[in-house]
Order: sequence, then C-alpha cells, then structure tokens
Amino acid sequence: MIAMNDSSFDKDGDTTGEFGLISRLAEFSFTGKLKKQDSVLTGIGDDTAVVSTPSGQLLLTTDAIVDGIHFRSIDERWYDIGWKCAVSNISDIAAMGGVPDHALVTLGVPHGVSKDTYTDFYAGMNEAFERFGGIVVGGDVVSSPTMFVNLALTGHPGSNSSGDPAWLVRSGARVGDLLCVSGPLGGSAGGLEVLLSGEMNPSGQILVDRHFRPTPRIKLGNLLVASGVECAMDVSDGLIGDVEKIAKASNVEITIEMSEIPLPAELIFMFGTSAIDLALSGGEDYELVFTAPETIIKQLQQVDAADVCVIGRVTDDDNHAGRVSVIDAAGEIYEPIRKGWDHLNG
Amino acid sequence: MIAMNDSSFDKDGDTTGEFGLISRLAEFSFTGKLKKQDSVLTGIGDDTAVVSTPSGQLLLTTDAIVDGIHFRSIDERWYDIGWKCAVSNISDIAAMGGVPDHALVTLGVPHGVSKDTYTDFYAGMNEAFERFGGIVVGGDVVSSPTMFVNLALTGHPGSNSSGDPAWLVRSGARVGDLLCVSGPLGGSAGGLEVLLSGEMNPSGQILVDRHFRPTPRIKLGNLLVASGVECAMDVSDGLIGDVEKIAKASNVEITIEMSEIPLPAELIFMFGTSAIDLALSGGEDYELVFTAPETIIKQLQQVDAADVCVIGRVTDDDNHAGRVSVIDAAGEIYEPIRKGWDHLNG
Repeated sequence: MIAMNDSSFDKDGDTTGEFGLISRLAEFSFTGKLKKQDSVLTGIGDDTAVVSTPSGQLLLTTDAIVDGIHFRSIDERWYDIGWKCAVSNISDIAAMGGVPDHALVTLGVPHGVSKDTYTDFYAGMNEAFERFGGIVVGGDVVSSPTMFVNLALTGHPGSNSSGDPAWLVRSGARVGDLLCVSGPLGGSAGGLEVLLSGEMNPSGQILVDRHFRPTPRIKLGNLLVASGVECAMDVSDGLIGDVEKIAKASNVEITIEMSEIPLPAELIFMFGTSAIDLALSGGEDYELVFTAPETIIKQLQQVDAADVCVIGRVTDDDNHAGRVSVIDAAGEIYEPIRKGWDHLNG
Repeated sequence: MIAMNDSSFDKDGDTTGEFGLISRLAEFSFTGKLKKQDSVLTGIGDDTAVVSTPSGQLLLTTDAIVDGIHFRSIDERWYDIGWKCAVSNISDIAAMGGVPDHALVTLGVPHGVSKDTYTDFYAGMNEAFERFGGIVVGGDVVSSPTMFVNLALTGHPGSNSSGDPAWLVRSGARVGDLLCVSGPLGGSAGGLEVLLSGEMNPSGQILVDRHFRPTPRIKLGNLLVASGVECAMDVSDGLIGDVEKIAKASNVEITIEMSEIPLPAELIFMFGTSAIDLALSGGEDYELVFTAPETIIKQLQQVDAADVCVIGRVTDDDNHAGRVSVIDAAGEIYEPIRKGWDHLNG
C-alpha cells in the first residue's frame, strides 16, 4: 500500500518529482464533493485502508510487483515470487492487526511466457494464503510488454480486549512508549546480497530463504490489538525509513538503541560489522515494528517473549517531531550508511 | 474481471495457450485445503466475485489497463483514460446489480512521466466515481518500464423485492427467457474507428465521446435485481462474445434477432451497413445484457421503456447448449464479420 514516502521513488534521489506525485494521489483522491468520505475510517498513508461498509469494517490493501524492479523473471523463481507477492499484501493486513480474507490477482502477461511459469507462481501464492489466511477469488489477465503482478487483498479487523473491532495505525505512538520489533532484521537484505554475489554457503542459504520466503506476522498483529497496542506497521522498506513514517504520522521523535536490534546469527557471520546496516536499512523482512506503554509490553513479553524485542523509545513530540535517531553502544548518534531500501538495486 | 474466455488472449487466434492459462488460474486458485472456500459465493467466471465476510456480502472486481494494449499514452487523453478505467470496474459492479463502494488504484510509472499526466488521470477517475458511486481509498505506486493502471473495486449487493441482498449471475438464463440490452451498441467501437481514421465530423465526435466516456448502468442493475431478474452481464467484449458467456454459463442456446439490436443513429450515418457488425462485435459499450421471463420484462418496460430493448430469446438447453445464433430480418442465420473485440487492434 502507498505510504507517503514510498521507497519506489527514492532510488534516484528524486524526492521532489515523484514524491510529489504520491502526495498528489492523496490530494486528488479526496477532492470534490465525494459523499462516501465518511465511510473512510483510515485512508491513504497507512498499511491498509479501513473502510466502513453497510455491513461492517473492511481492511483493503494492494501491492504490485514489476519485472526488473521487484523481481527478475530471468531468475525463474516463480514459486518464490508468488509466495512473496502474497506475503507483502498479507503483511499489510498483519500490520493493522487484521485477518486476511479475499484476494484479487491481476497478471500482466508478455507474449510467449510459458504456462509453467504461472503454475508455479500460483502454487507459491496459494501456499502462502493457505498458510496465513486468505483466498484468491478472482482477477484479471492482460497482455503487457512488461510482466507485472498486482494483488488486492481484503481483510477484517482484529478484536480488542472488549471484543470490539480495532486496528493498529502509524499515528498511534505516544511519548514514553517503548519501540519494539517482532524479530531479527536484515536477513532478507542479506539474502539478496548473497544471491547477487553468487557465493553460496549454508549461512548464505538461510539468508536467501529469508529473502524469498518471509513470514507475515498475522497472529502477532491480532495479539497486539487484543493487548491494547495502538501503533504498528510492517518493516517492508527498512527499519529507519519505516520508523520515520511512524514518527511523522504520530508527530513524535523516536530513538533507536542500535545494540538492541535483533540480528540473525547468519547475518553477523556473513557480513560482520556491516550486518547492522543491513538491519537498519534493509527492507522486506516483514516483521512488525510497534510502540506501546511499558506495562503493555511487559504483558506481551509474558505471552511470547521471543516475539517482542524492545529496541527504543518514543522520546519527544515538540522540537524534533518526525525525527528518528539511532544511538550506538557508546551513546553516540550513529549515521547509518544507507538510507532506504530500493529492492533489486539494494 | 476474468471471464473464462477473456478477449485479451484471443487476438492472436491463440485460443489454446493463454486460454488454458486462464482456466489454470481458476484451477490453481481453488486447489488445496483452503478453509475459506465456503465464503466464496460466486467465484472466478462472473463479472465480480461475491464473497461472504464476517459482516456481510461483498462484491470484488479488478481491471487493469496497459499502455499500447488498452490505451495509448501518445494520445495524452489522461482524463478520458482515468474515466474509462473507473467505468470498466464500476460496470462490473453494475453487471452484478450492486453498488460500488471503495477503490484501490495501482500505478505503474515509467521514468520521466509528467505529474500533469496523473493529475488529469485522477481527475477523470474521481469524476466517474463521484458520478456513479465509489471512492479511491488507497493504492500503490511502482516504477515500471511500461505504464499500467490496475483498479480494484469493492461493492455491496443490491436488494431484491423482499429487501434481501441479491445479485445477477451469468448462469441464470432459463429457456423461454427474453434477451435484452439496456441501450444502443457499437458506438464505442465506431468511435475508435473514427479516431483511428483521423476523419472527424459531428457524428464521428459523438461516437468518439461514446468511446471515451461510457456510462456504467448502476441504477439499471439495481432495478434489475429489485425486479427479480437473475441473469446479466455488461457488454465489455462485444455482444456476441458476451452473450456466448451467458449461454455457456447457463447451459442454454440463445438466439439474437439482428434487426432488434438498437444502434446509435450516428453509427448508421457513419458506417452504413457495417454498423450492425460494430454492434454485434464491438466492445466497451458497457450496456447491460440480461435475460428474464416476459412478465418481468413487461414490468421493467413500464418503469423505463427506453432502457429495455428485447433483442432475442433463450431457445434451447440440450442440443446446442452454449451456442449463440444471430438471425437476420429474412429469418436467415447471419455470420458476423468479426468475432470478438481486441481493444486497440479493433
């Protein structure tokens, strides 16, 4: 789903042109005398839209992948591409604390692509839906010079402690909240680097698997909503960039303690001191990052300690609203080497 | 939305390769032990999917357009492209007798496309939603060598005479039903021919407007459901091809009386005796074609005679199931010159 600083447009350092385009999308989507505006409970700028329908609330998200940008058809890893395409959408539902329901898939098909390509693609996609929830109910198939896949996914909200529908938003961070992630970061980015280098070993293979077979955190998202957490998103574009989205949406400053960020052992083994930069800036891990008061975090850690790592704190809401600071073990500000994740060019 | 003989794949006469692909989509979408299958009330093969959610029934549809296939970026008619992209999805909801609600739009953006392009595109798209119902609530923007737009749209079912949710399907035609269309056909295809010929006059301009600014028949779809009609679809790929989809889904034969097909006066003026072929095979008029018993049709004609033209009859369900016959004024079988509509190559 669209975030206001979607990484697709940062890769050329062009933060005015197409960044402006996305702002314009929001602007133009809501101009005019649109009568249904009241039905939009959470609109553009969060992981999914939340809409009110005559019969209840609905989560809506969509994500597209394009050959040469988000995947490489020459690799022919169709099962993996199908899996990841499903997971990137399911993860948006997880980030809202929701439950995935029904998917529509659009295929842009170049001339001459073999049927086995799509057999494998659907097998991977359906496997992910079977495992994490959701089912493909329809779609569109169109001719296209460039291969692309678009997935649109509906879901419904999880329930809070009173049993009422509730969802997580990026604007819910409050000063004093702890900042947490649901698992090790950087593995997917490390896997892509291993893959592009062509040098494979058992540790590298584990990272490559993290790259191709990420797990969306549906159950944890539901648990967060049930526990009273209000602020979350998924780490799809890199920790720093994604936490910045929370800081901006919530109008707060957030400080990350670098030494507290969980890293896969294989990432440290393969990349040494560069591992932390992959964890700070690498995307597509699909872990959840969330903030909540310490009392709620302590309760969550009693349910499942392994899935809740405290990595920072919401520190200010006036002078530095929207800023994210990374502090190293010596207490100094750390300037990450890379900012933002640009998929194949990562 | 996908129909089992989607026209995008017939243009090269290749009815085995990619036709097989679409069948496979259906097959692979529903294999495995998918627990949510019960929630799919109407799946792949109709104008929209109809799903049951914890909080009610939902219509889901998606349609994509690709530069060079469904539109030409060199024409720079962005407002019109936005309008038509919205209408093709809204029309799928109309074909089910439903009400459009919430849209997600994905843009595939080549490098260097001007912002004004998208400003105009969104203006056209939002104008159509404002006019016929629905609102854009989110989406995705991705880099892509080829420009494309994917729209996913939700809706909710209309109500039958008892006030209960109900929807129109392609499989609802019964022997003895009359076949009807909601308005003149062939105008959009005629408009495209005028446009490609480059020879413009006032009649030609009216046809070009029909091509770029079609009207989805939301109100009529709702009226059909309320009146007890059970079978309909929208004319998006051409009358004969679309009626064939009804004949196949309903396992019946359908006879079309050629002389009863309503034609735009401008189409006759511009194309003479070729007008009928544009009406039989030209797509993208977005009128509704539907079948119902004569008693229901007579009631409908009392409400709005202009919108209900009887053009044929459901004639058989055994020997020639799935067949569509066109009968000319002399009572002879008419062989249409073109079969199927292939967008820009029409």
